Amino acid sequence: MNKISGGITAPTGYKACGVSCGLKQNGKKDLALLHSESTAVAVGVYTQNIVKGHSLELTIDNMNNGLIDAVLINSGCANACVGERGYIDALKITEYCAEQLNCDKSNVAFGSTGVIGVPLNSSAIKKGIDMCTSDLSIDGGHDAAQAIMTTDTVLKEVAVDLEFDSKHVKIGGMAKGSGMIHPNMATMICIITTDAKVSKKVLDPIFKKVINKTFNRISVDGDTSVCDMAIMLANGSSNCEIISENENDIEEFENGLLYVCELLSKMIAKDGEGATKLIEVVVKGALSKNDAYTIANSIAKSPLVKTAIFGQDANWGRIITAAGYSGVDFDIHKIDIYIGDVLTCSKGEAEPFDESAALEVLKKDEVVITVDLNMGNESDKMWTCDFSYDYVKINGSYRS
Amino acid sequence: MNKISGGITAPTGYKACGVSCGLKQNGKKDLALLHSESTAVAVGVYTQNIVKGHSLELTIDNMNNGLIDAVLINSGCANACVGERGYIDALKITEYCAEQLNCDKSNVAFGSTGVIGVPLNSSAIKKGIDMCTSDLSIDGGHDAAQAIMTTDTVLKEVAVDLEFDSKHVKIGGMAKGSGMIHPNMATMICIITTDAKVSKKVLDPIFKKVINKTFNRISVDGDTSVCDMAIMLANGSSNCEIISENENDIEEFENGLLYVCELLSKMIAKDGEGATKLIEVVVKGALSKNDAYTIANSIAKSPLVKTAIFGQDANWGRIITAAGYSGVDFDIHKIDIYIGDVLTCSKGEAEPFDESAALEVLKKDEVVITVDLNMGNESDKMWTCDFSYDYVKINGSYRS
Repeated sequence: MNKISGGITAPTGYKACGVSCGLKQNGKKDLALLHSESTAVAVGVYTQNIVKGHSLELTIDNMNNGLIDAVLINSGCANACVGERGYIDALKITEYCAEQLNCDKSNVAFGSTGVIGVPLNSSAIKKGIDMCTSDLSIDGGHDAAQAIMTTDTVLKEVAVDLEFDSKHVKIGGMAKGSGMIHPNMATMICIITTDAKVSKKVLDPIFKKVINKTFNRISVDGDTSVCDMAIMLANGSSNCEIISENENDIEEFENGLLYVCELLSKMIAKDGEGATKLIEVVVKGALSKNDAYTIANSIAKSPLVKTAIFGQDANWGRIITAAGYSGVDFDIHKIDIYIGDVLTCSKGEAEPFDESAALEVLKKDEVVITVDLNMGNESDKMWTCDFSYDYVKINGSYRS
Repeated sequence: MNKISGGITAPTGYKACGVSCGLKQNGKKDLALLHSESTAVAVGVYTQNIVKGHSLELTIDNMNNGLIDAVLINSGCANACVGERGYIDALKITEYCAEQLNCDKSNVAFGSTGVIGVPLNSSAIKKGIDMCTSDLSIDGGHDAAQAIMTTDTVLKEVAVDLEFDSKHVKIGGMAKGSGMIHPNMATMICIITTDAKVSKKVLDPIFKKVINKTFNRISVDGDTSVCDMAIMLANGSSNCEIISENENDIEEFENGLLYVCELLSKMIAKDGEGATKLIEVVVKGALSKNDAYTIANSIAKSPLVKTAIFGQDANWGRIITAAGYSGVDFDIHKIDIYIGDVLTCSKGEAEPFDESAALEVLKKDEVVITVDLNMGNESDKMWTCDFSYDYVKINGSYRS
């Protein structure tokens, strides 16, 4: 596996573009279009929030047949909680897009992200579609990644090249997301492309497994939004087939996808609203996978842990506290807590440690917290970010 | 029922005091002692965190017989996660306290609040006990309430006078708590006194019912700590007996206790670390009490809702989002959302509203958010506070 430059148009057979059609008041790019030259096999996962954006409702319907030609995404407006017109607007926009691209109208996925309760400006989006269709290019992935950003400060795209018996397959991805980030999808949109030839039946379980290890392991503020989705397209342009019978190929492909999704996930966590640091919470020595996850989740969500890391304060008491109220029954006389490689709590008791060594760890822009329960062999990890003044600033005036 | 001035020493037969014994580096009061002239019936509820402070472990043991003469509380040090010596320190301190007060050593409750992982300074506390025992007074409740404060900015005490057939009963209380506040106890200590004559059997269910409606309905940051407790003492000094056969008396007594605990709870929520506003989240029209609670809890915990209220932004989209991911299955086409009396979302859709009217509501220092599910008749409410820059500031440097 080699990391290569680019994102969703790194795999062959995809074109994309990103334009400004006037949805964002600041004039920044706000509409992205991805088009596959041949109809792609598509799989997706969506927000678990029972309130769902109307564009997402339509996308879920359109993904039913497992085939997608194009993905349209606007930022600046979530198209959520606006009543019946929300779905109708989404329907008309995807129909218009399908006409311009000469594809089946049910083969267009549509994502909207931004403020809730405001109707889509359909005419602006249709103008944007016109601009996009004439501007689609194999170098357009970067512009598309730019157009889906909302409070993101960093553009998020990754691509890899995989080799299978001298044939090459590429996987590329882009994502947006910065606030309202929590497992089971968030204010997060992620599009992954590959030119592998792979059936929905083979792709779907691999995608879900990888999402569970990556995008479902990041938390910025514990909130999950109404518009979140991760969609993967496989258009077969490489002519390299991934079949379930060849376990080595499946493993290589899954590892490539895991690499792309893990990098995008960490980019999202690190770019959490107002964040200054990426925090990796590792829980090991648990009796069950679920125990490890539950404790990691509890620590990653704790505002007190997150503000302490922002303040570069090795306050492990807040880490053991968050573990303690997670609901998992563990032996408090066995737990070890490390901040970086500094042991701060041993067998549930304060361990005298070198504060200056801990400060060195906490000064870095990536901090690993390790909790070892010393009870079993199961482990899990989550990524989150610190909680800063700027999180409050950004979210105190989001609509204005 | 009449609200009267004072706190834990408003009921007859109690003395208290608060002194500075050197645990807090800033020289503020850090040790409180409450003494009942006759042994009191006592009931309590404690943190659900499986990591428990050592002073609390001892208190739970000492509360077993349901009798208490004295309650000692220190701030500045949590006496948690320091190994075996933590319980031994607590034991020796309560034994010393019992000697000075000439009471049974198992009739002393002991609370410690502050930093985790640092042993108690026993000699300082013993000196403090000497100061306290010579200084106990029927006007000392206020000093005691001062001595238990940590990051609290407001002293929290309340008292009421209840009349039963010309006999009077008083209930008084004090509380501390500001960060790490969440249902099922938090970094919160609350002491309630009454001079009613009431058995443990009668008092215990009333106390638990009231706690559930008050202290278990506040959230500052979703964190629950290792030292939290609420203890109630009834010393019978009023000679007015509350018996279960007299339902009117029980109801009057319960209402008085509810008044005291609700006011103390709201004081804690409003004094949440860095808070500028008290937020009351009301959920009604639910199919079950549990649904109402779960949604109220989800909204009250959402950092995005709390930062929006801080920013005086009527961003109801975040309220419906938090309801949507709460795990409760409700009909999104029926939900109404009010900010103050301003309807912002009607039947799940954006309702055009007067932004200036909403701003007037949000400018006040108490804001009510009402979510009506319009599905059933059950309701619940929670109190929380907004999330400000100062929350981050206070918690980014707690240990230093």
